[in-house]
Amino acid sequence: MPKPDLRAMQISLGPVAVFGASNFPLAFSVAGGDTASALAAGCSVVVKGHPEHPGTSELAGLAVMRAIQKNDIPAGVFSLLQAKKINVGMVLVQHPLIKAVAFTGSFSGGRALFDLASARPEPIPVYAEMGSVNPIFLLPQIIADKGTTLATALIESLTLGVGQFCTTPGLVLLVRDAATERFLCEVETCLAGKPPGVMLHNGIKRNFLAGLNELLSIDGVVRRGSPPSSLDGCLVTSVLLQVDAKVLLDNPSLAEEVFGPSAIVVVCDSRNEMLIVAERLQGQLTASVHGSNGELASFRDLLATLERKAGRLVINNFPTGVEVCASMQHGGPYPATTDSRSTSVGTYAAKRFLRPVCYQNFPQKLLPEPLRDQNLQNLWRLVDGRMSRDDL
Amino acid sequence: MPKPDLRAMQISLGPVAVFGASNFPLAFSVAGGDTASALAAGCSVVVKGHPEHPGTSELAGLAVMRAIQKNDIPAGVFSLLQAKKINVGMVLVQHPLIKAVAFTGSFSGGRALFDLASARPEPIPVYAEMGSVNPIFLLPQIIADKGTTLATALIESLTLGVGQFCTTPGLVLLVRDAATERFLCEVETCLAGKPPGVMLHNGIKRNFLAGLNELLSIDGVVRRGSPPSSLDGCLVTSVLLQVDAKVLLDNPSLAEEVFGPSAIVVVCDSRNEMLIVAERLQGQLTASVHGSNGELASFRDLLATLERKAGRLVINNFPTGVEVCASMQHGGPYPATTDSRSTSVGTYAAKRFLRPVCYQNFPQKLLPEPLRDQNLQNLWRLVDGRMSRDDL
Repeated sequence: MPKPDLRAMQISLGPVAVFGASNFPLAFSVAGGDTASALAAGCSVVVKGHPEHPGTSELAGLAVMRAIQKNDIPAGVFSLLQAKKINVGMVLVQHPLIKAVAFTGSFSGGRALFDLASARPEPIPVYAEMGSVNPIFLLPQIIADKGTTLATALIESLTLGVGQFCTTPGLVLLVRDAATERFLCEVETCLAGKPPGVMLHNGIKRNFLAGLNELLSIDGVVRRGSPPSSLDGCLVTSVLLQVDAKVLLDNPSLAEEVFGPSAIVVVCDSRNEMLIVAERLQGQLTASVHGSNGELASFRDLLATLERKAGRLVINNFPTGVEVCASMQHGGPYPATTDSRSTSVGTYAAKRFLRPVCYQNFPQKLLPEPLRDQNLQNLWRLVDGRMSRDDL
Repeated sequence: MPKPDLRAMQISLGPVAVFGASNFPLAFSVAGGDTASALAAGCSVVVKGHPEHPGTSELAGLAVMRAIQKNDIPAGVFSLLQAKKINVGMVLVQHPLIKAVAFTGSFSGGRALFDLASARPEPIPVYAEMGSVNPIFLLPQIIADKGTTLATALIESLTLGVGQFCTTPGLVLLVRDAATERFLCEVETCLAGKPPGVMLHNGIKRNFLAGLNELLSIDGVVRRGSPPSSLDGCLVTSVLLQVDAKVLLDNPSLAEEVFGPSAIVVVCDSRNEMLIVAERLQGQLTASVHGSNGELASFRDLLATLERKAGRLVINNFPTGVEVCASMQHGGPYPATTDSRSTSVGTYAAKRFLRPVCYQNFPQKLLPEPLRDQNLQNLWRLVDGRMSRDDL
């Protein structure tokens, strides 16, 4: 049978509501990654600025507005809303013209927006990045071989940016053996050498201290190192806690994120118990494994489990530091995000705001330029099953 | 700064619940497109068979089971559930191990599954294809030039498979002029020449007749052609209705799908009124425009509107006949589907069941084969921004 001429490409979903993140006043706020990727996808953007940095939001918003005027872009392509009350954001998500939502923040905030968007007469996708405890598995041989280096690197990662990254390690898992206590003392020493750090605003500090108190109220949770003194303003000290794996298994809330520079060391009785803890983990942005060359291969089952739990698997690196490139995946199974099929960092972040359209039997002149016979933009195109940059 | 080694690929979401469609006992049921694309993505599948064709489901299910045994595939990769009550499907969608849902059927069924899946403790994606009226715009010049050919082709498309395709045209829009009445008489004559057809089962026939009665109860809706005689079993005659555009604009329910061989001709007073109707349309699987070479270019605004409304735009073809290939888009904005970012037909249907995972700093042997330096499968890979099939 003769086949019709079918050509497909991605077009924009429509206007996107972007919620500025509390912890990234620049990179994930008004002119941050969500806004950039929505604009790159051809969507207009309405930003709801985060109430903890209204001034920074205003400055960034004005810069975007100036760029729009300078380049003769229609003014409606970008808007900034500022409000302390959450109802402004709710009205935005429910507006019929909004076709997608991007959010970075707390689990409760992200889930509330997701529920609101799903209950609309026309449901829309919500890309909520809601955090992660970013488990780090330290295998026995590498602790024995490189414990000191590892202790320093772990504390560097924990305290980077005063623990205010989505990828800050919050859970450190190891198997109890002869080297464990010496290693943990080294970690404790590294931590003690770190001066207090300034968190971004009072709200973050308040939540951090409240979260820590909840963790410490659970039987079996012990603090490594001296209790922090009460500090002024947004200053905090970093904190290391320790539990036996059994306590974690009985108290799943220990594996929920406390945003800030704190981590819980989970001591497992055996390799098998470590696998059980891994199996029980919720969805994560990242999961890291540190092991010597020899032992990594014997932990393939752990890697296979973590592949189902996280968006990015890391070997012998720490998860903090998120490269902006095509191969980055910053996302993961729920509750790390509300949409594990997407990334909020890197080239493919723009894909979140696209949908495919097929053009059947179109005359050349009416086709979008990327689909015409003549490949003016020198794009890679799949033509009759073959990748090509040729004209048709 | 030195960059980490980052490599990403797509992996399966996990077990998928597939709901067999009522109107496609083979192509969109137990061993149909949803099952095939979920398996292709590496997901196991639990099918809920449609209660209107349990025998066909059983036969197809047994064939899949035999293939699984023959090829030493784990038996849990495929299961078939049969039930008349909807609670079996509800339990399936709510099961924690199910990670995605594929459905083809009614709006009420699809939306109910979407709401259920979105309200789960861990929400999961629902790909519900819920139908469409597949509007067909007939421009003035082509009616004048090729009215007879067009009338025949329209009725062929309307009655194909007794109107039981998701892409059956249900709304035909034209501008009233000197040629209109002659053209509609030709359409009516073509329709009168069509014998009654057998629908798939009593449930479909019952819903079709009930839907028609609802349409006919609206003031201003007239039937073209003689009323159908009462027919035995699953036999029905195809039906053509006519309204003025104003009636449609006042009664949005006229633009909702009545599944079966019926179409409403919408007569617009002007080009402008036709654009208003187009602007008011809900999301569609397809939208078609028939026009002479000259007039198509002057209807770019119509095409631009339809691009925001439909997953597939068709020029001078009819939407029935859905090619299974990489460039097919069978999906569209809500309420055509619950996820306009996806297609349920064609190569990319498998993408619905995948999520990206990034592997950072992995030793070669622990990387999935497609990501290793040596490109054993000769895959196209994006390497440092360049498409390549070379080894690294």
